[in-house]
Amino acid sequence: MSAPRNPLRRLWADGGVAINGWIAAPSIITAEAMAAAKWDALTVDLQHGTADYASLLAMLPVIERSGAAALVRIPWLDEGIVMRSLDAGAMGVIAPMIETPEDAARLVAACKYPPEGRRSFGPIRARFAWGNDYPSWANDEVVPLAMVETRAGVEALDEIASVPGLGGIYIGPSDLSISHGYAPGFDRQEPEMQEVIFSILERCQTAGIRCCLHCGSVEYAVGMTDKGFSMLTVGSDARFVEAAGKKVVETFRAGTGG
Amino acid sequence: MSAPRNPLRRLWADGGVAINGWIAAPSIITAEAMAAAKWDALTVDLQHGTADYASLLAMLPVIERSGAAALVRIPWLDEGIVMRSLDAGAMGVIAPMIETPEDAARLVAACKYPPEGRRSFGPIRARFAWGNDYPSWANDEVVPLAMVETRAGVEALDEIASVPGLGGIYIGPSDLSISHGYAPGFDRQEPEMQEVIFSILERCQTAGIRCCLHCGSVEYAVGMTDKGFSMLTVGSDARFVEAAGKKVVETFRAGTGG
Amino acid sequence: MSAPRNPLRRLWADGGVAINGWIAAPSIITAEAMAAAKWDALTVDLQHGTADYASLLAMLPVIERSGAAALVRIPWLDEGIVMRSLDAGAMGVIAPMIETPEDAARLVAACKYPPEGRRSFGPIRARFAWGNDYPSWANDEVVPLAMVETRAGVEALDEIASVPGLGGIYIGPSDLSISHGYAPGFDRQEPEMQEVIFSILERCQTAGIRCCLHCGSVEYAVGMTDKGFSMLTVGSDARFVEAAGKKVVETFRAGTGG
Amino acid sequence: MSAPRNPLRRLWADGGVAINGWIAAPSIITAEAMAAAKWDALTVDLQHGTADYASLLAMLPVIERSGAAALVRIPWLDEGIVMRSLDAGAMGVIAPMIETPEDAARLVAACKYPPEGRRSFGPIRARFAWGNDYPSWANDEVVPLAMVETRAGVEALDEIASVPGLGGIYIGPSDLSISHGYAPGFDRQEPEMQEVIFSILERCQTAGIRCCLHCGSVEYAVGMTDKGFSMLTVGSDARFVEAAGKKVVETFRAGTGG
Amino acid sequence: MSAPRNPLRRLWADGGVAINGWIAAPSIITAEAMAAAKWDALTVDLQHGTADYASLLAMLPVIERSGAAALVRIPWLDEGIVMRSLDAGAMGVIAPMIETPEDAARLVAACKYPPEGRRSFGPIRARFAWGNDYPSWANDEVVPLAMVETRAGVEALDEIASVPGLGGIYIGPSDLSISHGYAPGFDRQEPEMQEVIFSILERCQTAGIRCCLHCGSVEYAVGMTDKGFSMLTVGSDARFVEAAGKKVVETFRAGTGG
Amino acid sequence: MSAPRNPLRRLWADGGVAINGWIAAPSIITAEAMAAAKWDALTVDLQHGTADYASLLAMLPVIERSGAAALVRIPWLDEGIVMRSLDAGAMGVIAPMIETPEDAARLVAACKYPPEGRRSFGPIRARFAWGNDYPSWANDEVVPLAMVETRAGVEALDEIASVPGLGGIYIGPSDLSISHGYAPGFDRQEPEMQEVIFSILERCQTAGIRCCLHCGSVEYAVGMTDKGFSMLTVGSDARFVEAAGKKVVETFRAGTGG
Repeated sequence: MSAPRNPLRRLWADGGVAINGWIAAPSIITAEAMAAAKWDALTVDLQHGTADYASLLAMLPVIERSGAAALVRIPWLDEGIVMRSLDAGAMGVIAPMIETPEDAARLVAACKYPPEGRRSFGPIRARFAWGNDYPSWANDEVVPLAMVETRAGVEALDEIASVPGLGGIYIGPSDLSISHGYAPGFDRQEPEMQEVIFSILERCQTAGIRCCLHCGSVEYAVGMTDKGFSMLTVGSDARFVEAAGKKVVETFRAGTGG
Repeated sequence: MSAPRNPLRRLWADGGVAINGWIAAPSIITAEAMAAAKWDALTVDLQHGTADYASLLAMLPVIERSGAAALVRIPWLDEGIVMRSLDAGAMGVIAPMIETPEDAARLVAACKYPPEGRRSFGPIRARFAWGNDYPSWANDEVVPLAMVETRAGVEALDEIASVPGLGGIYIGPSDLSISHGYAPGFDRQEPEMQEVIFSILERCQTAGIRCCLHCGSVEYAVGMTDKGFSMLTVGSDARFVEAAGKKVVETFRAGTGG
Repeated sequence: MSAPRNPLRRLWADGGVAINGWIAAPSIITAEAMAAAKWDALTVDLQHGTADYASLLAMLPVIERSGAAALVRIPWLDEGIVMRSLDAGAMGVIAPMIETPEDAARLVAACKYPPEGRRSFGPIRARFAWGNDYPSWANDEVVPLAMVETRAGVEALDEIASVPGLGGIYIGPSDLSISHGYAPGFDRQEPEMQEVIFSILERCQTAGIRCCLHCGSVEYAVGMTDKGFSMLTVGSDARFVEAAGKKVVETFRAGTGG
Repeated sequence: MSAPRNPLRRLWADGGVAINGWIAAPSIITAEAMAAAKWDALTVDLQHGTADYASLLAMLPVIERSGAAALVRIPWLDEGIVMRSLDAGAMGVIAPMIETPEDAARLVAACKYPPEGRRSFGPIRARFAWGNDYPSWANDEVVPLAMVETRAGVEALDEIASVPGLGGIYIGPSDLSISHGYAPGFDRQEPEMQEVIFSILERCQTAGIRCCLHCGSVEYAVGMTDKGFSMLTVGSDARFVEAAGKKVVETFRAGTGG
Repeated sequence: MSAPRNPLRRLWADGGVAINGWIAAPSIITAEAMAAAKWDALTVDLQHGTADYASLLAMLPVIERSGAAALVRIPWLDEGIVMRSLDAGAMGVIAPMIETPEDAARLVAACKYPPEGRRSFGPIRARFAWGNDYPSWANDEVVPLAMVETRAGVEALDEIASVPGLGGIYIGPSDLSISHGYAPGFDRQEPEMQEVIFSILERCQTAGIRCCLHCGSVEYAVGMTDKGFSMLTVGSDARFVEAAGKKVVETFRAGTGG
Repeated sequence: MSAPRNPLRRLWADGGVAINGWIAAPSIITAEAMAAAKWDALTVDLQHGTADYASLLAMLPVIERSGAAALVRIPWLDEGIVMRSLDAGAMGVIAPMIETPEDAARLVAACKYPPEGRRSFGPIRARFAWGNDYPSWANDEVVPLAMVETRAGVEALDEIASVPGLGGIYIGPSDLSISHGYAPGFDRQEPEMQEVIFSILERCQTAGIRCCLHCGSVEYAVGMTDKGFSMLTVGSDARFVEAAGKKVVETFRAGTGG
């Protein structure tokens, strides 16, 4: 059997845990700057980021060349943008706010050609990016990830996780925390939130699917790698700019008495 | 006498040294992320950055709202882009590779309405950004900065610095170093390069104009503040993304034995 | 209790009636030209206008700086674009063709974080525009407006108006008139249409929510201010250009015998 | 009775069979190059092509000027993009993956003003492109085409075809073939697929609506013209570029022993 | 002899005086709104407007379809943008700040193929817009207009006006007034400025070339038509938006005691 | 000695003759469709094509991944765009209308860092595309090509060809033919034009630099390969679309009696 084409599946097949970067800016040069770090995966965020389909299309070649798996977080569960992202060459789709197995099944169906799903045929750029045989293996390689980030999602997790073809669950700690009455934010320390998060992980493992976690700091991400998560996301281009800029200005003000 | 409208001139009038950020990505959200740090000035780089006039126009409102002086580094000495940048609302122009007083005079002329210069009238967005009286004070407020970054420029510095209306000299250490036979890079430690740089500073002070320095690290910039520089640039959005991304991935690899 | 952050809510809290401008062109400079008039609110029209998310993002800083409340009319009821508009910084969302309380509830839910709704967390630009405490007050400040512009919507008005969290009803007279068998157009003079419109207004007042009206002329809008409407829209950038251009050319032809 | 305004309806009224070109690239110049061939119709593909609303808007004037009917294939059945496409001036909408009469009815409703449908009023560019009387005839002229490209669609064809106001069925042979267990591709030669395709055509004729077919080669299209299809699509800008480029390079390599 | 292809030349051949509109916004819909007024010419302003080459390319089909002659004001005298504008289909070029016959000759040369000039061959869109015979008549039809708007330009007017192939002089009253010590603005009433303007007109007539004038109001333009000007510009899209918006808001405030 | 990094230089070092494709459309997908043919080089045409810097930046990753050398034809000899193209990652620059050795020297200087030239340092994307050691070898790898396409250029050819660092001459037969009194067009058959072209080739060989030729058909290009040219350009994306579209429509009309 040949190795997976999707770099993320290949890493997983080798037992690896992926470090995933996050792209909020619709810009070639920041995509290049991110890609230079050699992430295992890079996700273009069409939901809370500011890219749209046109900028996604332009950033995918940059991401792919770095060897990272290009993923897309879609704005909302909608077949149109799922299919357009895949046709553009993305190797995975992260769908927000999945709360029912019906939602998860819609996501999977949009990611797979018949008979596994109902993806429409027309891999306009994917064929250029991945070769003419792309349609023959795309169903096996594309990773549909359902975000579970609400109480309702957690409650329906077992049904969601058992939807055939779903690649995994992607935990969004900010929304999940709000849903449980906490302030938004990553890297939760509250026992209740940790319990919720680890419970999701455990139930994914039982269901035999991947579990991914959005983190705020690499230290937290490192701490999660031996828990069994398959992919850990850290930071974003916009956050990196904000943090570094503030640090420079603060250091300057401090150093100059400003 | 009322305070200057240009935040950079206001800071200078108060005796301050400006910390200047650098924008290479044509993206609203990274401009917002930079602006959040409250720099004294933010420069959109149309030369070695990837923005163009259209993205500059979109980023200026973001920069202005933060209180920073919006500057533009132009691709090459060309009246068209100098005037379009100012008409868009920029409060200063940094022109690369100035080597003669004639070049500097062309830069100044493009920044000033007659009789001081030959800027053409039509402040299409500047008027919205700065008020209907903008034309009456623009000549006094806009800052033309000539980059001196070659041996030829250094040799002609005294003539350049004495061009009436020039706001100051902006030192580009990378090109300057190449021109002197060193590898490109900021934060020069070589005695020869330091001597060149401080000689430029001193001659600017003699000529009564500002001297600005492009730095690689804030530590170096802090060390330069008491030398007499008027503005110190540190980093860029693209560099911040690259550095932070690499640090995350390296930390992750190190922490997970990857 | 502190004053509202949303300029529209602040005006309403002070008993004012808002004048709202309409933006159809995806252009910074026409947004600036509109903003220069100091409207109480400015709506970027993603439905019948030609802006899209990317141009909305670029125009919001311009609108905000003018002091106007930035609103967005979405193309159709879709959680993705509602949330992206708010994450970009918009202070209100106008949703077209609302005909059932279920539709209105979906709109409200998309505008509010849990527990009031199901807005997903990630105020990518809103946080830069409105401050880090934005998430703590956004639910109270963002205004969801449901367009009632069909017979079906009018019939369901009482149920729609009583959906918790709905900010108000926005009357679209063109569609409403078509739905009642009249030609499209604003500033209705037909007794039947006036009765429909005032009946909507009255029922909004009974329900304790705002009622807004799209007008064609400022004269009509002025005439409506003492009826009890909370916001009146007049014109659009594209209409202003069309009307003024035609007037110039007609005057020229008339004056020159052309 | 006056001639139809929609060039496609006019051709059909004259008994013609339309040749339709396909636009995948969001570029003015390739749109001009396509339009130069004087197609009867040109479809901008927002589903498997790479254009989006903003580029559609820019290409419509080019298409219209050539005399071709401008059609849009939407990414997925969604009222927002149907109406925005029509407001931009498109004379027809091709909706993918229609499988039920309910889907077809939603498509028709989105294409027609009340009372025939529920299209919202605001023909922002259509009015400039087609005249101020556009609203009075748009319902009669705009062509809603439902793609039937799955087994489910074929099974429901009679109900779909009898939805009042539907302009016709557009056969997508690639998806249809996948759905029947064959490899994707146009110009089917398999007896089963031909039977399915001709059965759709026959049932459209019975229902009194148009039947259109997506073809891979003009030879295949020519062969289909006397079967009773009303519109035949051949190729796309991206396919033309790919094929011609490959032919040039292959010929060069062959001719130079490369 | 056949009629000119350039609508502006055709009007002039018929003895008409052209009314010219001005486009500052890079937007299809405001271009359509302008074009709806049926101007004789419409100028896309790449100098003090905010369009660039890419948006020019998209607006030209809109302008052309209206029957107006599409002109371009370039940012500064530069062969690259002159030729790109013409290749895109523009029928005239307005070059700012011409002060010497050498400048005017450069403008003319850039507008004409050899032997009249040195325009490089490649009418990428012009050929689609104007037909395959475009190159055979372009030299005769394209109108190069030199802006005279400084004292230096006025002094050199006779030499400028006698440059072979120059279509005419375009007077920019704002810069011209600044250059003569007055505040910027159109529609000059000062005897000195009127004398300068009429002197330019007269010397153009003597030289046998066209003279055009930028006006602020249509009333002023009408008053100039019988003086001998060949084209009068009034307003701009951005000015129309600004003026109309302000009038609406002021009327509303006045009408509501706001 | 290691192999050249620039694919074009590598091919030349191996004794090959390059086949070069031409990109006129600013579109990712047509760039992908071109790149799929595995050209030796692909040139983005910023002069007579419709791309600009922003679209160039997005297309370079696509071109590079195909293995083709990415070249840029600049609009006119201007240091700004030469340097921006190289900073974006281009491996060669084709400058139009070079007529003097001074022009050629300016081109070379803009392509090379000191001491060979005066290129300013800041390879913003080139470093990501080609590695951190890019600055150390860029001077040797980047290919400056001077277009000779006028009588004046031909007359000065020997001086132009002897400018140190110039990579070669690129013959533009259309302009060259106009300059010699013929109609524009490629693939010249006139004895005079062939003599001019072969004379240029011969003089390049004498000078020890490359000679490249723009062709209209691959057949002509093949015929030229054994003459000694180093690179032959055939067609363009826009031409491919135009030709293929016309052929389809003509075949359809012929086949259907239309």
